[in-house]
Amino acid sequence: MTGDAGKKYLLDYSEKLAPLLESLLDQKIDEALAISKIPAELLKRFKEIALEGKRLRGGLVSLGYKIAGGKNPNVEIGGGLIMELFHAALLVHDDIMDHGDFRRGIRTIHKQFEVIGTSIKVRGDPAHYGESMAGCLFDAIFFITWEKLLSLPCNLEEIKAAGNVYTKYAIRVAWGQALDVTTTSLDSLNGEDILKIISIKSGEYTTTLPFLFGAALGGLKDKKILKAIEEYSLALGWAFQIQDDLLGMFGDEGKTGKPNDGDLKEGKNTLLMLRLHKHGTKDQIAFQKKILGNPLATAADVLSMRKILKASGSYQYVVDLGWKYVAEGEKVIPLITHNPQLKTVLSSLITYMMERVK
Amino acid sequence: MTGDAGKKYLLDYSEKLAPLLESLLDQKIDEALAISKIPAELLKRFKEIALEGKRLRGGLVSLGYKIAGGKNPNVEIGGGLIMELFHAALLVHDDIMDHGDFRRGIRTIHKQFEVIGTSIKVRGDPAHYGESMAGCLFDAIFFITWEKLLSLPCNLEEIKAAGNVYTKYAIRVAWGQALDVTTTSLDSLNGEDILKIISIKSGEYTTTLPFLFGAALGGLKDKKILKAIEEYSLALGWAFQIQDDLLGMFGDEGKTGKPNDGDLKEGKNTLLMLRLHKHGTKDQIAFQKKILGNPLATAADVLSMRKILKASGSYQYVVDLGWKYVAEGEKVIPLITHNPQLKTVLSSLITYMMERVK
Repeated sequence: MTGDAGKKYLLDYSEKLAPLLESLLDQKIDEALAISKIPAELLKRFKEIALEGKRLRGGLVSLGYKIAGGKNPNVEIGGGLIMELFHAALLVHDDIMDHGDFRRGIRTIHKQFEVIGTSIKVRGDPAHYGESMAGCLFDAIFFITWEKLLSLPCNLEEIKAAGNVYTKYAIRVAWGQALDVTTTSLDSLNGEDILKIISIKSGEYTTTLPFLFGAALGGLKDKKILKAIEEYSLALGWAFQIQDDLLGMFGDEGKTGKPNDGDLKEGKNTLLMLRLHKHGTKDQIAFQKKILGNPLATAADVLSMRKILKASGSYQYVVDLGWKYVAEGEKVIPLITHNPQLKTVLSSLITYMMERVK
Repeated sequence: MTGDAGKKYLLDYSEKLAPLLESLLDQKIDEALAISKIPAELLKRFKEIALEGKRLRGGLVSLGYKIAGGKNPNVEIGGGLIMELFHAALLVHDDIMDHGDFRRGIRTIHKQFEVIGTSIKVRGDPAHYGESMAGCLFDAIFFITWEKLLSLPCNLEEIKAAGNVYTKYAIRVAWGQALDVTTTSLDSLNGEDILKIISIKSGEYTTTLPFLFGAALGGLKDKKILKAIEEYSLALGWAFQIQDDLLGMFGDEGKTGKPNDGDLKEGKNTLLMLRLHKHGTKDQIAFQKKILGNPLATAADVLSMRKILKASGSYQYVVDLGWKYVAEGEKVIPLITHNPQLKTVLSSLITYMMERVK
């Protein structure tokens, strides 16, 4: 099975979701304008970034909803919107914490408002102003997701069940982020800690949350199926994250929309880096120590780092691990659904996670 | 009518709420510990600050719920907890935006973690680390309030109605904050803008939100009563805010728990400052321009500013305005309830807003 069907599912869903995401944000812009053009400007700039993206989360809401037997396209798309907005709001916050300058090929919100803050009178210095504005934005978006959830045309029991999935994983992702910003040195961490951080911060909320959220909206209560969805989605999350790590170091910037030396310079503890730290030669580890998290690393340093990752076998180890997760996820698909079309999508989607180039 | 009965209502409610707030946060600390002691530490420090506070918002949830005829103490207290947690989380965020060092007499969360960030290896500089940690905290608390709301022992229609009130005002407060950090110069603002910012940022969410939230949890749907609650709570919000402005400049630091030169040094556009800007003499306005928003203002400058506010009549104007709102709020009480006990509390509570010393 190739990733084509999975990719197509996400693309088709994305095309249905995009105009509704746009009109929801346009409506919010109108409402904000009633207060002032300032929050409206925040939302306009957010819209540009929110309209980009892979829609993996929205697609998983859709799959979960369909697997549960859901038939209402307004719930299927509306539920996806919620997860896409939540994700986009988290990215606004993440970009502040990670000092990110670009997101999806667009200047990050706090950086955009830092520029604005240099030309008008604002509270604090421009950088602080940019972060404050971005902070107001993601606060508002969090609440907009709840407004949307409460308005979905399904019964309240299902909204409550979906809301409980949402809170559970959203709280975990916040704690995972706290862990991530605190423990950033490979020396101070063991492998398990890093895996836990990656899982909580990314896999769980990227895949398990939207999949279970969609299933809850569709009224799915069968514990065995829910358990299988959790297993599949965790494997999917690992495959996604592993490819993210690979793209973050070896990706084509023109396709990913973000620099492929960012992870390195920020000092991200990716699986690639963890493997090298554990199994590299003394010299390789010394070089890693010098370069990882060094914002002044040169292009030559980055190139050397890539060579070392390949020479040490770390690169191949991580690629193999990704494909191992693909196989694991494939195994539980028969426990999730008997619908042949949905089975095909699930199988292809997890393959696509490792095939994708952005 | 004095403010005693209103003060007592808040105190009594506070005593009922405190142990439940503590046990809810202890439960959250246990859950966070399952991930790591780092998020648990965040919550422990948050608990200390959350357990302080006037409980005005919680008290208003209780009043709204009782006026609606609600009888379940678990909803009455649980609803109050949600509003107190939301408020405390907003304060964590506000303190970052306003560079606040102390809150309720305790060092602010981002400042506490800035200190921690100097002694361990963390991502970014310690100040940025402190802000990131505080950011993870308020994100999590926002979602904890929704988790709690979904779990309240009332019917889902009421939870949905209360949730809709919550999202409406929470989104507004975020936009009001964006407005506030953007437009900080008195020259660039007209009086109406400032009143709008104050109303959205403080009055609405401090009083209207919790009062209507409690009423929704109690199932109140009568539009006339809801309208009267809105009017009363806006007047209450203005009285509250006006006293806040007065205490922020003339308060007893030992009682308020915050410096009484903070508003001045931060450059807050309070009603006191707006009035002086509009009606002061040329010299007074020139002095105001020099000192307002000047973090290097000396104790003598602050003293002079206080004298000018009194000499110019600004102080008395704002005090009178506060009492005017008290009278306005009193007028609509008969439209809200016929219950004599609740009427007494409402009447006394709005008086207390202007009498309070913290």
